[in-house]
Amino acid sequence: MRASGILPAPEWQVSQWFNTPQPLSVAGLKGKVIVLHSFQMLCPGCVIHGLPQTQKITNLFDENDVTVIGLHTVFEHHNVMTPEALEAFIHEYRYTFPIGVDQPDGKQGLPYTMRTYNMQGTPSLILIDHQGYIRKHSFGRDEDMQVGAEIALLVHEAKIAAAQHNSQAADHVKSKEKHENKGCDEDKCCV
Amino acid sequence: MRASGILPAPEWQVSQWFNTPQPLSVAGLKGKVIVLHSFQMLCPGCVIHGLPQTQKITNLFDENDVTVIGLHTVFEHHNVMTPEALEAFIHEYRYTFPIGVDQPDGKQGLPYTMRTYNMQGTPSLILIDHQGYIRKHSFGRDEDMQVGAEIALLVHEAKIAAAQHNSQAADHVKSKEKHENKGCDEDKCCV
Amino acid sequence: MRASGILPAPEWQVSQWFNTPQPLSVAGLKGKVIVLHSFQMLCPGCVIHGLPQTQKITNLFDENDVTVIGLHTVFEHHNVMTPEALEAFIHEYRYTFPIGVDQPDGKQGLPYTMRTYNMQGTPSLILIDHQGYIRKHSFGRDEDMQVGAEIALLVHEAKIAAAQHNSQAADHVKSKEKHENKGCDEDKCCV
Amino acid sequence: MRASGILPAPEWQVSQWFNTPQPLSVAGLKGKVIVLHSFQMLCPGCVIHGLPQTQKITNLFDENDVTVIGLHTVFEHHNVMTPEALEAFIHEYRYTFPIGVDQPDGKQGLPYTMRTYNMQGTPSLILIDHQGYIRKHSFGRDEDMQVGAEIALLVHEAKIAAAQHNSQAADHVKSKEKHENKGCDEDKCCV
Repeated sequence: MRASGILPAPEWQVSQWFNTPQPLSVAGLKGKVIVLHSFQMLCPGCVIHGLPQTQKITNLFDENDVTVIGLHTVFEHHNVMTPEALEAFIHEYRYTFPIGVDQPDGKQGLPYTMRTYNMQGTPSLILIDHQGYIRKHSFGRDEDMQVGAEIALLVHEAKIAAAQHNSQAADHVKSKEKHENKGCDEDKCCV
Repeated sequence: MRASGILPAPEWQVSQWFNTPQPLSVAGLKGKVIVLHSFQMLCPGCVIHGLPQTQKITNLFDENDVTVIGLHTVFEHHNVMTPEALEAFIHEYRYTFPIGVDQPDGKQGLPYTMRTYNMQGTPSLILIDHQGYIRKHSFGRDEDMQVGAEIALLVHEAKIAAAQHNSQAADHVKSKEKHENKGCDEDKCCV
Repeated sequence: MRASGILPAPEWQVSQWFNTPQPLSVAGLKGKVIVLHSFQMLCPGCVIHGLPQTQKITNLFDENDVTVIGLHTVFEHHNVMTPEALEAFIHEYRYTFPIGVDQPDGKQGLPYTMRTYNMQGTPSLILIDHQGYIRKHSFGRDEDMQVGAEIALLVHEAKIAAAQHNSQAADHVKSKEKHENKGCDEDKCCV
Repeated sequence: MRASGILPAPEWQVSQWFNTPQPLSVAGLKGKVIVLHSFQMLCPGCVIHGLPQTQKITNLFDENDVTVIGLHTVFEHHNVMTPEALEAFIHEYRYTFPIGVDQPDGKQGLPYTMRTYNMQGTPSLILIDHQGYIRKHSFGRDEDMQVGAEIALLVHEAKIAAAQHNSQAADHVKSKEKHENKGCDEDKCCV
């Protein structure tokens, strides 16, 4: 049950990935919390605050619970914030989380995902819950303490859901077993 | 259900309170999460990091969910870290959360609560859940992001418990009403 | 030659010293640059910025050139910012520069030196040149870079003056020698 | 008079300038102190510490005394740290001091000036006195207070030299005038 106004996270469109052996998608990450940090390599607020915070999230939370993704959403200086430049930037700053290049529109405008998510600029922080819903969408600087609190709650929600799912699945298996096991096997007889 | 090793928080013993109209106790705060920050006014790590973090917790979390308490656990320089000095310190640094003076042992040793809680020194951070159990007990410096995450989870736990309790209470009331309302009043008749 | 408006530094009046085997005075320090940092141990701006800067000055400059002095100018909370409390404070924060207690007026008002120097509050930073003149008198926060620049210039001025003095003294000795050495000694004959 | 080991600053070789209407040279800046900050736009130590310090120097010292110059000494990732990328970087970080692109060697190696000055890496800080001598050559992080002190002394040295020069020049003019004005003009007669 979601409050009205909570929207499903659209798929991002990424032209190139770094720090990940395979492409990542909202659908493919269902069940996990997604921290999506949108940045530009020449945005001072991203370099000074946003990206270090994103690395901190990567270090703090269990990667089985949270997938941290950087999204290079270039909306200015397209000719110099290229994927090649981004690769050198990632290397020098030693970021370890997966980073995708937001699909350019080919006309020096807002890239695809940035437009789809209706971002106001960089840095933007988007939290997506285990069901794929956008639960936070902020622009500018967020305090570490608040971000830590928000992610922790989404992780907890995911775990509860997983536990319920497992328990229901177990019930389902049991009930299915009941039906399928009608009659007797060597151990028991079912009605 | 608690993991083994999780202990109930003993009552603190406070000789004097600041920033609160009435004394606070573990028992009296049951249902709420308690953040207990143990400090000394002449401890640099407390002044530079611990107390600002404690004020940040106060500002971030809802006071209906979390009670933040500073505990002045003087174990050295007893003659100058007096309640009177503490009062001036609180005034100058503009802390807004309740602060208690840990009951001295009268022999210039560890104060009462510090010994009861087996604290290693200052700053110490203790998180107590809504049922009064100690869920975190750390000495030194904790990252804002981690502390935010931990408190958020305890708050959530408290809310879930409160919701369950209310729902059970409602059931209880309903069932009680059923019994008591047997027969008819001016509005309706119960079976 | 001083610009008009530059005043000689009055003697401070100190009731008790820490971190120095003997009392210090403006007169006794003539020839050296004096950095006088006025603070209160319960003043957040002093603890967070002013005192760390003062320790940095102590570490950076040669003690033969610059004498750094902390002055505890208590103008509020007199009953708790006692010399005894100050001693514990100095011990815990590990300040290494000499610190004096500004002579109280005995009426809970401004202490003696603070009034004499016409300080506006704490932290105050006063730079005194090698001739005993006040060359900087500021209240609040100063940038490290600027303070470093100002002190360096005063040190240089002192060294130039010392060199000139030595050179004049040498001339004086020479001329004296000339006179006194008129005639011959076992080594040489002077005209 | 220089201590032995103090070397004249070689001319830098710059392929492109930003933030200055005309090229700058060691020779052309004789009489002024030069602060030369060597950086790369993808060097974290430069972005986090070196460049902000350089901007602080620009803001603190009088531009008539000190010329601050950034030098983009690209020795890695040549293909992405282009002048075009640098221009966007300067724009986004709002640096106001002149910045030159160190002449590439065309073989992806150390650029010309970096090799000539024998720099170890970025950030490097080089202070050049009013006579064109290298007075500081450091690699890594320098404290603001120390850098402020060092620059202030070089500025002072330059002013003293300028004052002496002016005084000698005035003497020279006077003596020249004496000679040239021998005899009478409509105003006066000289002996």
